[in-house]
Amino acid sequence: MNLEALDTPAAIIDIARMQHNIDRMQTRMNALGVKFRPHVKTTKCAGVVRAQIAAGAQGITVSTLKEAEAFFAAGIDDILYAVGIVPAKLPRAMALKQKGCDLKIIADNAAAASAIVAYCKHANDIFEVWLEIDTDGHRSGLAPDDDALIEIGRVLQEGGIEVGGVMTHAGSSYELNDQEALAALAEQERAGCVRAAERLRAAGIACRTVSVGSTPTALAAKHLEGVTEVRAGVYVFFDLVMANVGVCDANDIALSVLTSVIGHQPDKGWVIVDAGWMAMSRDRGTSKQTHDYGYGLACALDGTPLEGCELVGANQEHGILAVECRDEITKRFPIGMKLRILPNHACATGAQYPEYQALAADGSTIAWPRFHGW
Amino acid sequence: MNLEALDTPAAIIDIARMQHNIDRMQTRMNALGVKFRPHVKTTKCAGVVRAQIAAGAQGITVSTLKEAEAFFAAGIDDILYAVGIVPAKLPRAMALKQKGCDLKIIADNAAAASAIVAYCKHANDIFEVWLEIDTDGHRSGLAPDDDALIEIGRVLQEGGIEVGGVMTHAGSSYELNDQEALAALAEQERAGCVRAAERLRAAGIACRTVSVGSTPTALAAKHLEGVTEVRAGVYVFFDLVMANVGVCDANDIALSVLTSVIGHQPDKGWVIVDAGWMAMSRDRGTSKQTHDYGYGLACALDGTPLEGCELVGANQEHGILAVECRDEITKRFPIGMKLRILPNHACATGAQYPEYQALAADGSTIAWPRFHGW
Repeated sequence: MNLEALDTPAAIIDIARMQHNIDRMQTRMNALGVKFRPHVKTTKCAGVVRAQIAAGAQGITVSTLKEAEAFFAAGIDDILYAVGIVPAKLPRAMALKQKGCDLKIIADNAAAASAIVAYCKHANDIFEVWLEIDTDGHRSGLAPDDDALIEIGRVLQEGGIEVGGVMTHAGSSYELNDQEALAALAEQERAGCVRAAERLRAAGIACRTVSVGSTPTALAAKHLEGVTEVRAGVYVFFDLVMANVGVCDANDIALSVLTSVIGHQPDKGWVIVDAGWMAMSRDRGTSKQTHDYGYGLACALDGTPLEGCELVGANQEHGILAVECRDEITKRFPIGMKLRILPNHACATGAQYPEYQALAADGSTIAWPRFHGW
Repeated sequence: MNLEALDTPAAIIDIARMQHNIDRMQTRMNALGVKFRPHVKTTKCAGVVRAQIAAGAQGITVSTLKEAEAFFAAGIDDILYAVGIVPAKLPRAMALKQKGCDLKIIADNAAAASAIVAYCKHANDIFEVWLEIDTDGHRSGLAPDDDALIEIGRVLQEGGIEVGGVMTHAGSSYELNDQEALAALAEQERAGCVRAAERLRAAGIACRTVSVGSTPTALAAKHLEGVTEVRAGVYVFFDLVMANVGVCDANDIALSVLTSVIGHQPDKGWVIVDAGWMAMSRDRGTSKQTHDYGYGLACALDGTPLEGCELVGANQEHGILAVECRDEITKRFPIGMKLRILPNHACATGAQYPEYQALAADGSTIAWPRFHGW
């Protein structure tokens, strides 16, 4: 297949751009002297993850047990499940571990730690548990200096559970758009996570791994002393949110939505396309950033951005593209014309599709399945 | 299974509420003397559509050819594909028609009409085509008094294509929240679509069907003179957007997301749950309405809304529930506790799941598959 022959809407991966993004991150991690553990929640796609591993990634991060199961079945056994464990999910996690998966789980509270200890006694087996650290106040985790950190480490250790590491995610980096501020947040993320590890070690709790990361902080960090590994997800495709953050250019964005023109409202300067929110996702992540792209930025079929041509509205299967030419609108954007739209948020857009279409340098495309659900 | 045993997150359909919503709409359509053609894009689920047909619906509306193919395979042959046709999709549509599906397609411009005529000559077969009318300026369609309406009707008729009807969707009804304004928009939708049909008939173009609808206008219309059928989708589940519009109550909402508590940030009054935007969708449809529910309104496991307990933030697999009790937060919302969250937009939330879990009156649940993609 090729872009002209594909049915629309379709999620297109530009393989050359993806490979460039992978190489950029891996080169950086190698230079910083840390392991890199990509977050596969962005793509849930074996074709992409194989390229990340081939470039030097060591292990993966997942956001669901379904991801862990699917990628273990695909041959990856070093997996961090980076969402605080629900006790009811422990049997499913243990079943995966007992098949040979080196699955790490995380906790940030005493109740979860106690539930893990109780379950492991019952199951007569153990998990490696990492403690989640909050270094920027945006979501989950224990503050690096919280007394509870040591208490929870002890609950686990005394229960026979290995505290394998600490991990943090400075997700508030998505709200920044300045290199200096990003570098400062990266340092805050590093220092907080290292501090938590040092406190645990001082209390006699082994804590081999210090894991940090988000795409913006990974790309902004000046050094990573004390850190053993970095995690990042969206860097593999990038998107308009990341372009606004300032860590990529629109020309780095490897994911786009292929769409066809289905109508016009010339008086309004609208081109109607068959990429609505089902094709783009409902993500409006650029709405509070420097440049609000609506639901996406349109490009010609060859990927060249059409400046000022944005998807200003989206119903389920209709997108409204606002363009500047009103007089020539039906000539410049004829019925059936194909365009590509860069997404606000690659993780959310990808999730709308059962498969990506991977576009090679010779213009050919091949379907790369992805999965959804839990 | 039952709610206590289900893994989280899960999309729960309260069957009794769904049936109540179906009966309410069908009773109303019967009283107004029109056929009812539900839009199945909301659910893409045979279990739900069977209940709509059993209650008296005649035919369905779809937003993708995949929906048309799936529901034709499930035994429904009267199908309106209610998105302006892309010429490149005509062979796929024709393949379905030639299997025996009474598939209607739509057009709102001369280029698409000419492409249909040309394709049908080539294929030596015909489609029934309806013309799309714009009665509220929100998206696609021809104005009822547009000269192009007659021209396009003639292009089709002279090309041997039957103009089977006119259709409109007053989607701007989602922006209202007042019964009088909704009734006025319903009348505008009705009158505009009937006017278009009358103009076509006066020009000698047969136009049997006059099809209107959106959930709010269908429920607000005082009479439907000249209309032959109504379409609506989200009424089957309702959601918080519809509650803000004023056409349902929170207790009518038949779709909720089952979630588990995974953490707390007591200083902030946050309960962290495993329903993030992947479970809720990125839809923020209530953000500009009377009451902004964030990403959803939390309920106890029995479905009772917890007033003021809203999902104020969402990352991919983390939801942040803001609650009022800070002191007792870990006791009132213990780790592992299950809650249900009412969604902003049922169509978008359902699309995140490979299946619904249908909850019966006896508390048992059964999986109802749904499909995604195009």
